[in-house]
Amino acid sequence: MRLADGRKLIYFDRDDAPVRDQADSRRLLPADDESQLRYDDLLDQWVIIAAHRQDRTFQPAENDCPLCPSRPGHATEVPAPDYDVVVFENRFPALRPLGNDVPPSPEPGTRPGVGVCEVVAFTPDHEGSFAHLDPAQVELVVQAWIDRTQELSGVPGVEQVFCFENRGAEIGVTLSHPHGQIYAYPFVTPRTARILQSTQAYQRRTGRNLADDVLASEQSAGTRIVATTDEWTAFVPRAARWPYEVHLYPNRRVPDLAALSCRARTEFGRIYSDVLRRFDRLFDDSAPYISALHQAPVRHGRELLTLHVELFTSRRAPGKLKYLAGSEAGMDAFANDVRPEVAAAQLSRLA
Amino acid sequence: MRLADGRKLIYFDRDDAPVRDQADSRRLLPADDESQLRYDDLLDQWVIIAAHRQDRTFQPAENDCPLCPSRPGHATEVPAPDYDVVVFENRFPALRPLGNDVPPSPEPGTRPGVGVCEVVAFTPDHEGSFAHLDPAQVELVVQAWIDRTQELSGVPGVEQVFCFENRGAEIGVTLSHPHGQIYAYPFVTPRTARILQSTQAYQRRTGRNLADDVLASEQSAGTRIVATTDEWTAFVPRAARWPYEVHLYPNRRVPDLAALSCRARTEFGRIYSDVLRRFDRLFDDSAPYISALHQAPVRHGRELLTLHVELFTSRRAPGKLKYLAGSEAGMDAFANDVRPEVAAAQLSRLA
Repeated sequence: MRLADGRKLIYFDRDDAPVRDQADSRRLLPADDESQLRYDDLLDQWVIIAAHRQDRTFQPAENDCPLCPSRPGHATEVPAPDYDVVVFENRFPALRPLGNDVPPSPEPGTRPGVGVCEVVAFTPDHEGSFAHLDPAQVELVVQAWIDRTQELSGVPGVEQVFCFENRGAEIGVTLSHPHGQIYAYPFVTPRTARILQSTQAYQRRTGRNLADDVLASEQSAGTRIVATTDEWTAFVPRAARWPYEVHLYPNRRVPDLAALSCRARTEFGRIYSDVLRRFDRLFDDSAPYISALHQAPVRHGRELLTLHVELFTSRRAPGKLKYLAGSEAGMDAFANDVRPEVAAAQLSRLA
Repeated sequence: MRLADGRKLIYFDRDDAPVRDQADSRRLLPADDESQLRYDDLLDQWVIIAAHRQDRTFQPAENDCPLCPSRPGHATEVPAPDYDVVVFENRFPALRPLGNDVPPSPEPGTRPGVGVCEVVAFTPDHEGSFAHLDPAQVELVVQAWIDRTQELSGVPGVEQVFCFENRGAEIGVTLSHPHGQIYAYPFVTPRTARILQSTQAYQRRTGRNLADDVLASEQSAGTRIVATTDEWTAFVPRAARWPYEVHLYPNRRVPDLAALSCRARTEFGRIYSDVLRRFDRLFDDSAPYISALHQAPVRHGRELLTLHVELFTSRRAPGKLKYLAGSEAGMDAFANDVRPEVAAAQLSRLA
């Protein structure tokens, strides 16, 4: 369906075909449409300039949560009185689909900020969390990620689809209702581009796959393993940047979620929730975290890169955050205060 | 001189030869010595693992400020009862010089975290700020940066010397006394390595220097200039990542501070302070900022790279911070909420 300002909304339901015919009763003006990509020649990467987002919703009171179902007298982003999982286009997107207007011919080194930004509400329960969704609900979220990845990969100009969750006011999350986001970028992200470059160089040098060897090396070292299933391995990487950082790899490399076997998909939901619960128990209350679901780009490196999750918290001890200061934010040189083996031992005990 | 635990301390004085014979009266045990570099094969860069830093000083009360001069009954990191500028080795360093012990032969992909981390107290005035130092004091700080860069460049294993300032509790600064830091890294930082790679590729492609052309392009566009002198240009870069970000380039490319002419050096202090004061006026109180002084590495790219400052604040509006969330921290894909031309216009009006 479409929201009042024309944005797309999609329900993902656990049961067959509940009626979802509620219209969006709000009056919404379409948000300003001004997003641009600019090329940074020195760092050799695109930056998104999305000035209209300055006015976006900032920690509204719980009563005003835009991700809760609508109720009489309070229309939210979701017109239905209930839902299971819902995905809709972000009202304040950093990137948006190319409209019918032909964009003015841009300055050199700039182009329109074409792409898609979506919000995924994981549950109608405002107080819930991903870690505590039941297994069927987790599978539904995974299904939504897969469907959206497949559809967004076909949008003209989209080069990579990135599903992620930011959790916790300490890292700037403006809405506490459990939700994630999906960015469909018109470029291969700088991080992925770098991993692809290393992977290609490694293959030329050794004839082997870098992701496969990183996983095998963690499995054989064994000192940083957090959890495993037949299909998955969760470990703190040897050169972790963040105090608590877990990478979750499938034991058999696949480019994206859609390429997982049914069994690997089910086990993914199980081990991913398990790792999130360990994060929650680290400091006796819920840790802020960023969870980044790496999928291969639409057109590059699909035969070389692997789907994996990179999950990390900026909390380094109870009440203490790791900030990105001069060395990290200025020079990309990370100093990690927690030994990866120590972090892994803590996390593996928190089952 | 040496502090009680053997760390080096150097006074930089405005007047000739004041007597600085106060010994450090404290009993300090040498801090644990455990720092390691680990190679991240996927991102192709070193990460510092410095676990001993977890216990470092965290926002002590003003009475306990370790950067104030010592007074009777209260011995600080600086034994003298007064000072102009002082530099000393960090008590909780991420990197340290190789001692006499031969390190155990490390695992593959790891090596000892050799290097130097120093603290620079810009003024004895606890309530001061760099922006409000008088010109002679600024010149003294610049002189300290130059001397330390030259000495640290000669330390075995050091590949790059980085002077920086983190300012503001909002970005995690643990000590409010005006100070900066110097890191002497045993590798070329990932950011600099990337800039060098782009610069080399640009030179092969065009025969021209990338930094020169970036500066010339900003000067000729003129829409993002914040301040200029005969020797310097301060501008918001076209593809700025942060809401308020200023790059300060010398009009004639030099690899580091020491290579500046006397005139360029004096003007540097003037325009750098000027830009910091503009940052202070942005939000009617002092904005948190990171100031990164980029200098060419010790042994690489000195003929290609230029000295410059990259200064940015994570504040995007009064009371609102820009956080690095999924897109930035997970994928290095930055979305900036403030148009660089708007930021430049604001900053250039704040003279």
